[in-house]
Amino acid sequence: MAETMKGLKRSHRCTEVSQKNIGETVTVMGWVQKSRNKGGIIFVDLRDRSGILQIIFEESDVKEEGFKKAEKLRSEYVIAVVGKVEARSGAVNDNLLTGDIELRATEVRILSESDTPPFPIEEDSKTKEELRLKYRYLDLRRPDLQKNLIMRSKVATLTRAFLAEEGFLEIETPMLTKSTPEGARDYLVPSRVHPGNFYALPQSPQLFKQLLMCSGYDRYFQIVRCFRDEDLRADRQPEFTQMDMELSFVDVDDVIDVNERLLQKLFKEVLDVEVSLPIQRMPYKEAMERFGSDKPDLRFGMELKDVSDVVKGCGFSVFTTALSNGGSVRGINATGQGNMPRKKIDALVDFAKGFGAKGLAYIAMSEDGTNKSSFSKFMTEEEMAALINRMEGKAGDLLLFAADEDDIVFDVLGNLRLEIARNLELLNKEEYKFLWVTEFPLLEYSKEQERYVAKHHPFTMPMEEDLHLLDTAPEKVRAKAYDIVLNGTEIGGGSVRIFQNHVQEKMFEVLGFSKEDAYDRFGFLLNAFKYGVPPHAGLAYGLDRLVMLMAKEDSIRDVIAFPKVKDASCLMTDAPNIVEEKQLVELGIEVSNVEEPTTEC
Amino acid sequence: MAETMKGLKRSHRCTEVSQKNIGETVTVMGWVQKSRNKGGIIFVDLRDRSGILQIIFEESDVKEEGFKKAEKLRSEYVIAVVGKVEARSGAVNDNLLTGDIELRATEVRILSESDTPPFPIEEDSKTKEELRLKYRYLDLRRPDLQKNLIMRSKVATLTRAFLAEEGFLEIETPMLTKSTPEGARDYLVPSRVHPGNFYALPQSPQLFKQLLMCSGYDRYFQIVRCFRDEDLRADRQPEFTQMDMELSFVDVDDVIDVNERLLQKLFKEVLDVEVSLPIQRMPYKEAMERFGSDKPDLRFGMELKDVSDVVKGCGFSVFTTALSNGGSVRGINATGQGNMPRKKIDALVDFAKGFGAKGLAYIAMSEDGTNKSSFSKFMTEEEMAALINRMEGKAGDLLLFAADEDDIVFDVLGNLRLEIARNLELLNKEEYKFLWVTEFPLLEYSKEQERYVAKHHPFTMPMEEDLHLLDTAPEKVRAKAYDIVLNGTEIGGGSVRIFQNHVQEKMFEVLGFSKEDAYDRFGFLLNAFKYGVPPHAGLAYGLDRLVMLMAKEDSIRDVIAFPKVKDASCLMTDAPNIVEEKQLVELGIEVSNVEEPTTEC
Repeated sequence: MAETMKGLKRSHRCTEVSQKNIGETVTVMGWVQKSRNKGGIIFVDLRDRSGILQIIFEESDVKEEGFKKAEKLRSEYVIAVVGKVEARSGAVNDNLLTGDIELRATEVRILSESDTPPFPIEEDSKTKEELRLKYRYLDLRRPDLQKNLIMRSKVATLTRAFLAEEGFLEIETPMLTKSTPEGARDYLVPSRVHPGNFYALPQSPQLFKQLLMCSGYDRYFQIVRCFRDEDLRADRQPEFTQMDMELSFVDVDDVIDVNERLLQKLFKEVLDVEVSLPIQRMPYKEAMERFGSDKPDLRFGMELKDVSDVVKGCGFSVFTTALSNGGSVRGINATGQGNMPRKKIDALVDFAKGFGAKGLAYIAMSEDGTNKSSFSKFMTEEEMAALINRMEGKAGDLLLFAADEDDIVFDVLGNLRLEIARNLELLNKEEYKFLWVTEFPLLEYSKEQERYVAKHHPFTMPMEEDLHLLDTAPEKVRAKAYDIVLNGTEIGGGSVRIFQNHVQEKMFEVLGFSKEDAYDRFGFLLNAFKYGVPPHAGLAYGLDRLVMLMAKEDSIRDVIAFPKVKDASCLMTDAPNIVEEKQLVELGIEVSNVEEPTTEC
Repeated sequence: MAETMKGLKRSHRCTEVSQKNIGETVTVMGWVQKSRNKGGIIFVDLRDRSGILQIIFEESDVKEEGFKKAEKLRSEYVIAVVGKVEARSGAVNDNLLTGDIELRATEVRILSESDTPPFPIEEDSKTKEELRLKYRYLDLRRPDLQKNLIMRSKVATLTRAFLAEEGFLEIETPMLTKSTPEGARDYLVPSRVHPGNFYALPQSPQLFKQLLMCSGYDRYFQIVRCFRDEDLRADRQPEFTQMDMELSFVDVDDVIDVNERLLQKLFKEVLDVEVSLPIQRMPYKEAMERFGSDKPDLRFGMELKDVSDVVKGCGFSVFTTALSNGGSVRGINATGQGNMPRKKIDALVDFAKGFGAKGLAYIAMSEDGTNKSSFSKFMTEEEMAALINRMEGKAGDLLLFAADEDDIVFDVLGNLRLEIARNLELLNKEEYKFLWVTEFPLLEYSKEQERYVAKHHPFTMPMEEDLHLLDTAPEKVRAKAYDIVLNGTEIGGGSVRIFQNHVQEKMFEVLGFSKEDAYDRFGFLLNAFKYGVPPHAGLAYGLDRLVMLMAKEDSIRDVIAFPKVKDASCLMTDAPNIVEEKQLVELGIEVSNVEEPTTEC
């Protein structure tokens, strides 16, 4: 039978007790981490959010009744202990904040008993994730998850304080809003009052924050839940959190300035990491050509090199065909990997094929000066030498080449570069390399839709110097868009927005929207734009990803209290689930019997 | 054609310019509030979030081109102005922060033109709310709404900073969660991956915050969106914001303590209002008997008096019948209202009937010592005198009586008391009277469901001294629940939670839930409770209501950026709306054709 706290008041959290308190009587409360009886003395490690404190029970101190209770203690029992702080009698435990003290109990109460947990509550759990997610309330007791969520809370608190000081207002935007089918799939919410009508959960507060700029709020921010009904990947969740902001009367540099100072503050105060400013900027085109990626990981080199001009007349038709089809031949130099076993090279070739490469050409340069190559037989010695020379290949290096359309070459080599770095363990999680990627293409051509689509969104401002290309070569127009990249992950992105009606109309024209289409989708924003719009720009971070990197985790599930798994379900609550028929009737909807087609009548 | 900001950078917001800047060149940007040409000089009031600055355009300063632009300016044009700050040449305007200066323009750019707005952008708008909500982006430009949203942002920022300092962690809980049909109606979200299954949007994070306590997070808070699909009233919205918190190893006093300090800080820093602590506490029973309400407005007296014993033997059957049916007779004294015209008294009687009264008995005591009464003919002079004496009636007072079941008497007189106070304009919005209402009944009997239901929720802890009544007289059990009331509005409420399995099981038994029922609904919480639960308690504020009172508004729509109207629709975006058939097919749902029943086949 559980006891109550009546008459007791916690005086300290476990690790708030220290040498300073020796001789004092304190009251602590928490969970039994472990308990052992050593020669008639019971030692209990008591755990709370702050850490662990060792408690000593001796019958002479806690009386017979108290000692009997102490004997009953098992892992995860919740207890309250009154006792006297003493210097530790045994060896000091350097792994504990409180390793030099212990608490000699004079009173103990068992506030709550516990069944044996299905897995141990310990750091670096070996338990498989499915079981941990089912018992998430126990998993969340593990110190590493607690550290992550405490860090997340700190990031949010610091961000809010910083932005408030910079004159940003936190303004809440609606969750039950209008479906605007552009971008990802919406989550819908049936309306009971208007049967047959639906709200959509927001994919982002984009339109609302732009309206707030039209309304003169000048600087907006929000840490806000967003929703996308997409198939999940490792770093995606159906609901995720954006740190979202928008500023009026600014241009690219103003947005970048305030965000650099924000990032600098966060990394200093949370991780004690110095981010030196300004953060490097790189145009999209350069990022693709040097790293094969619009979110380059700058923690290592292994840059792409264009060898098209070197191989253009060579005898290797894979290279020359790619070139004559308008593509390119590019390579990376995996320095010092010339002795990579054939099996591993083959694995890299397979990896490359996964990104659309037809193959991967290589030159493995041994320390002894001999080269193995998949294509040397098609080349002259001079051609090989020129190629190696261009790649700055030295004895002991491994040179890898892709030949195809640019898009494929970049994707293949960009990913290959990362794969090799992972294999060689070049990716140090203690190192933080930031990069702004700028001058993104405004549009990309969608073969599926047979039209241009906005790369960012249809309100992104073209660069002034490219405006004249909107009619003649839309694919060449660069946008005033920017992404902030950390260690090869895009942690945020944004743009300057169009604020002139004539530019917006031209943009819709290029996207193939009729005026009616445009008003159907974005009518309230376009109407708002008739009444005086300030120049404005914004940026949104994926908070989950940012904290994941700060916490040095590989999955955003490790920085979300109650995450969902790949099929968008929650293993703990079993959401989504079947609801009562009455609820559906009230909403005026029915579940289609997709499995069993209705019989003819 | 709109110009751009290129080469310009805003140096100040409008009211950041002051006498200190006289002689300096500054750059301001904002909206034209009004513009007038007075003898060849153009005066423009420029508006931004901070307020208004007067700009002067003379052709000699801005050149011909600039002056031509200035002549074109109309309300709501967005402009950038470079100019020199001067002492105001005309009369100082005490209504403006910048009333003693003006800006002499040397350069002007029209960044965005504006159509004539459908209503003027001004304080205390006379425009009807429907039109303002349709053009919410314009309505939000009005200084009073801007003041409200700026205040809301400040309240949130201060709350977060305070709670972070008190050791609370902000932890985000899911929005796509499980429907638990107890309480209000859920908003549902169909699952695409699991056709026929639904998520529910949370009515509150109650279960998750209790889980976080089980997981050892110790102190949790969140400013979080919640959803209830109920028919709307003036102070309800389908989505609303809670400031939600939960604490471990605490009892009632600990929760009250931290919240009193929070409220004190908010009112001091936002309104410069001193809240003196401790805030008064009143048990539910006393609140009902003295004020006829569980959320008494303490800004005025007019307390209820029980006169049952005085009238028990009288000749007025309305009184005696109520008493013999187990009810009571109670009255209020509307001091000084003895001369209220008959018409107004009749209106009060009708008002009372709206709350279930069969009628309202009154004694109107003239200044001249004569009394008019609806029931004196049934009473002896002595009985009347005793009644007036109990009511402390004096010449010039109006005594009003209700006789019925207690519930109805309280409801009638409690509301009548407020109605009279409203009519007499006793409700001063500058005055803030806080009250904790405590010792709420744990349960109330639902005639509809023929069972007891939880007044707060099924996890609320009974008061220890009443535990023994759970079997014999459940309706008498008081809960460790508390509401924080401000000026007659409940702005927050909470409770200590049950943390012992055997009490929780007893609670479900009293509520008539089988063990299976209970697990169906709350299984994951009950499972979590098997593994060591700390005593815990919490509280949640309705942020919308709190800010409404702080902003001295009558509707929460005035403190929400994009509110919905009574039918839960948004007049600006037209949400909810029809979606594409394709979207429904993907979700595996169909709209039932409730209007036109299907014909027989």
